[in-house]
Amino acid sequence: MAIVWLTGLPCSGKTTIAKQLQLRLEQMGKASEVLDGDEVRTWLTDGLGFSTEDRYRNIMRVGHVARLLSRNGVVAICSLVSPYETMRQRVRSAQSGYFLEVYVKTPLEVCMKRDVKGMYKRALAGEIVGFTGVDDIYEPPLIPHIPFDASDLDSLPTIVDKFVSQLRAPGPG
Amino acid sequence: MAIVWLTGLPCSGKTTIAKQLQLRLEQMGKASEVLDGDEVRTWLTDGLGFSTEDRYRNIMRVGHVARLLSRNGVVAICSLVSPYETMRQRVRSAQSGYFLEVYVKTPLEVCMKRDVKGMYKRALAGEIVGFTGVDDIYEPPLIPHIPFDASDLDSLPTIVDKFVSQLRAPGPG
Repeated sequence: MAIVWLTGLPCSGKTTIAKQLQLRLEQMGKASEVLDGDEVRTWLTDGLGFSTEDRYRNIMRVGHVARLLSRNGVVAICSLVSPYETMRQRVRSAQSGYFLEVYVKTPLEVCMKRDVKGMYKRALAGEIVGFTGVDDIYEPPLIPHIPFDASDLDSLPTIVDKFVSQLRAPGPG
Repeated sequence: MAIVWLTGLPCSGKTTIAKQLQLRLEQMGKASEVLDGDEVRTWLTDGLGFSTEDRYRNIMRVGHVARLLSRNGVVAICSLVSPYETMRQRVRSAQSGYFLEVYVKTPLEVCMKRDVKGMYKRALAGEIVGFTGVDDIYEPPLIPHIPFDASDLDSLPTIVDKFVSQLRAPGPG
């Protein structure tokens, strides 16, 4: 099937969108799995830190699992900050199937205000080093398939509709 | 679907069996993936060593990916030394679906003679520490679903038939 790759700042709404998309696909009778940053850090990438090297490893590992799933007919919905363009390029080019890159471009101020786990606060206080959006850069995708602002999470159903229509369009198979 | 977990000494024939089983399942129109030790060490568990802690982490990680696959209808064929009983117990109890434990009980002498990658030789020379069968123990499964000696790889088709009949039996679903 396909890989849907959600990239964006921490707290931009990636995982919320991923779960909504999964629900929608379930209603359509399509198998899917959400591979989100926190979940993969528990299972797949425990022990990895936030250094550039570890971030690459993290991303490639998730990409590998996504490939295993997608080539067996499961939509793999990956929800990871994945801040660098080269990182996303690398994971993209390792895939043979349909890869839908979604840029969740919620403004930094909105993400900081959400700060679900108080990570921005800790990063601003200097307790976390290399935190995307604070002291590490986020490089927006050059040509994302679907860019959108998820400041207003009430607009989610419309966004998810967009995904589903993309997944139905010729190509994803 | 199901998880088929092949455990046994290095060079006991696990991966050969795994690939044969995959082929047979493919002919039957069943989706499957082989997660073998080397492959997972490239993709999923790169950076992990052979310490007890790392071995557990390795096993649990593969178990997690196997679960993602199997709950989506893919037979996950895992081919890993997985030398300790507690290790296999842990991975087994983390699964909700059908888990078929296969003990590839090829005698150590035969495995050593095969020594596909020269690892036994290196372990015997003291170049590798903690190598299963040389200076680290292998605990045979207490109650494996299918035990067999894979000294003679010509007998593989018969072994694979056994697996397939087990997978068809009530239970795996």
